[in-house]
Amino acid sequence: MNIAMTDPDPLSRLAHQIFDDLRALSPDGAGVSRPAYSGIETQALDYLADLARDHMLAVDTDAAGNMWFSLPAHRNAESFMVIGSHVDTVPEGGNYDGLAGVVAGLLVLIRGRDRGLRIPVKCLAMRGEESAWFGSCYLGSKALTGQMTAAELAAPHKGDGRPLADHMRALGIDTAPLTAGQPLMLLDQIAGYVELHIEQGPLLIERDMPAAVVTGIRGNIRYRSVTCTGAGGHSGAVPRAYRHDPVLAMADLLTRLDDSWLHILQTGGDLVLTSGIVGTDPARHAITRIADNVSFSLDIRSQSTEVLDHMRAYLHEEMADIARVRGVSFDTGPEIPAAPALMDDAMVAGLMEAMGRTGIAPFSMASGAGHDAAVFAQAGVPAAMIFVRNRNGSHNPREAMEIADFMVGTRIISEYLEATDT
Amino acid sequence: MNIAMTDPDPLSRLAHQIFDDLRALSPDGAGVSRPAYSGIETQALDYLADLARDHMLAVDTDAAGNMWFSLPAHRNAESFMVIGSHVDTVPEGGNYDGLAGVVAGLLVLIRGRDRGLRIPVKCLAMRGEESAWFGSCYLGSKALTGQMTAAELAAPHKGDGRPLADHMRALGIDTAPLTAGQPLMLLDQIAGYVELHIEQGPLLIERDMPAAVVTGIRGNIRYRSVTCTGAGGHSGAVPRAYRHDPVLAMADLLTRLDDSWLHILQTGGDLVLTSGIVGTDPARHAITRIADNVSFSLDIRSQSTEVLDHMRAYLHEEMADIARVRGVSFDTGPEIPAAPALMDDAMVAGLMEAMGRTGIAPFSMASGAGHDAAVFAQAGVPAAMIFVRNRNGSHNPREAMEIADFMVGTRIISEYLEATDT
Repeated sequence: MNIAMTDPDPLSRLAHQIFDDLRALSPDGAGVSRPAYSGIETQALDYLADLARDHMLAVDTDAAGNMWFSLPAHRNAESFMVIGSHVDTVPEGGNYDGLAGVVAGLLVLIRGRDRGLRIPVKCLAMRGEESAWFGSCYLGSKALTGQMTAAELAAPHKGDGRPLADHMRALGIDTAPLTAGQPLMLLDQIAGYVELHIEQGPLLIERDMPAAVVTGIRGNIRYRSVTCTGAGGHSGAVPRAYRHDPVLAMADLLTRLDDSWLHILQTGGDLVLTSGIVGTDPARHAITRIADNVSFSLDIRSQSTEVLDHMRAYLHEEMADIARVRGVSFDTGPEIPAAPALMDDAMVAGLMEAMGRTGIAPFSMASGAGHDAAVFAQAGVPAAMIFVRNRNGSHNPREAMEIADFMVGTRIISEYLEATDT
Repeated sequence: MNIAMTDPDPLSRLAHQIFDDLRALSPDGAGVSRPAYSGIETQALDYLADLARDHMLAVDTDAAGNMWFSLPAHRNAESFMVIGSHVDTVPEGGNYDGLAGVVAGLLVLIRGRDRGLRIPVKCLAMRGEESAWFGSCYLGSKALTGQMTAAELAAPHKGDGRPLADHMRALGIDTAPLTAGQPLMLLDQIAGYVELHIEQGPLLIERDMPAAVVTGIRGNIRYRSVTCTGAGGHSGAVPRAYRHDPVLAMADLLTRLDDSWLHILQTGGDLVLTSGIVGTDPARHAITRIADNVSFSLDIRSQSTEVLDHMRAYLHEEMADIARVRGVSFDTGPEIPAAPALMDDAMVAGLMEAMGRTGIAPFSMASGAGHDAAVFAQAGVPAAMIFVRNRNGSHNPREAMEIADFMVGTRIISEYLEATDT
């Protein structure tokens, strides 16, 4: 099957076909399951390889099992741009999280084959991005860029308990080089990494925009379980002046953090803040008892290291103040930090210009979730992302990306990479 | 054994002996267990009966299995005061919650036998006050005053699952009359009911007072599980403007209630407020996910019906405001109300005067917990209470009442009931 590249409709139809075929290949409940480093993931890659060959693309596999597509003329280029994402999904996930970025790369190559590309381009279909299977995320990109750890390789599969290394070897992958701390290729060859991904929040829906250029991937400071300890007591018999109620102390802290969040937004800062898990101790709590303690998670994210540092300091100041005023104590437990990954300024500027050329007002936003793009950025590769409007978040069967929006996002990347007349 | 009543020390020694003997009769773990309507509870009553007879008191049992003690001359009095409390405990509870009020009644009778009493007095040792065994509390006083329900009689024991009625019949109690809606005695005979009880909060410890006269028993409005429903989402990807975070909404509500509580106290109102149980849904919550919903209990108590009505209205106003501002919804579920039980003004005044006569500055306070006294008040019997200083709350083995403080509380009741020279 060959498609006339001057007509956009065939590309759109091809996108429909790939998404439909891969959905049919990996159904699970109401959604799809393409487990990391599994046979199903391999089948998905093999399907893409067949399709790529049908479109006269070269197909290669790297030592981590990721698949590469390129125009035959660019297969051995010394420097190239990469358009990448992953083909695995969470269990009973949606069909677009990951796959959309791979399909975009293929379409850019197919379109670019006729229009010409100002620089060699490769499409990279990665494995194992989702943490749902082995606990760690970005396995394919980490292995490729030399960032995989021995602990990750030894991590048990959440279903069968066998380590990642076993699952890799079953696919014919030699795991020895993966944790040597060395990239599996010369990263200097990669002039830039672009990833198209569905937006996992509602911003583009709310703003009525089909796509956006991502300016950075939020880093975070995360506490799995902050404990506030007070003093239990009879709910009726202890006057307020003698209470040390950890639940009201937690409420006070969360309200102060929420107020501070609003202030940071109003002064132009980037921040999101979530306490997704809260709970008193079921073994001790009662309606008629002041709780002894309460635990809650905190996930604080920003594109800006300065904002994260500010929030960490503010959190500790407010905890100290509340501890003093209310006679409680806070223990955050270990902080799990992740640095923000800034996208490459020149690439962001280029993509914004390309977006304008597609006839849409350039729009940019932060990514709140992590992506393989952050792994490349952390490895020193200039990286950028395009988000495509999507309803209902991701990691669930209700992901709802319109192909028309997907084609806008793909077109922005094509516009960015294609040779122009200037 | 007969004790010279002019010497206070023998009474104090007698109190020590009774508490020690009954602790030895019902040990359980670090504390004591005297289950409601059990053989152990009967043994405790039988011990008290033997002791009362040794002190030349008359002993009777009513149709609900409660035990009555009186001077023989007052056994058939047409009108009398009652000094009462309960002998049962929670599992692995303390020795003083309940028993202290019964021992106080016995000591008042023994002392009053020689000094004279201005009105006949009976001591009432009740069964089944604690809800820990059959789910409902005040079983002995409810049965006596005609307030026991068929549902209470059918409620299963939390240990063996057999209904209360079975446990009562095993003790020889005819259960048929208990739920007839009629008191088991002429309540008009009871000129007043006085109950000494350990304080279950820290106020007397904090104020360095040995005892207090109780002005009222707080009523409450209680919600077992208020649910706040928002909209789940990715913790990193949803901007604040598009969030409907139920955890922050709950924190906002609790903080507003806490602020309102402080205001009510500062304007002289009586209030305590507790959210003892809070929790997100373990089946759905995650650190990196905005919670879909959160549930929390509310227990709001006051001596004043007006304050409770105000707080109910305020709660609903603030929930409506937060629902509007944050795009969440609140569902309180059913309200479980309990009206405040005011103590009898004349009895409170009399006990305050008596407290002054013992040489201690009169001091009064609210009771935050419910007591049998509330059941008598609700049955139309004038009721009053004395609280005795106690460390570490109640319903645990660490209850710590000093016998010296107990004797102060007992003396206040004696001073109130004994014939005076005026």
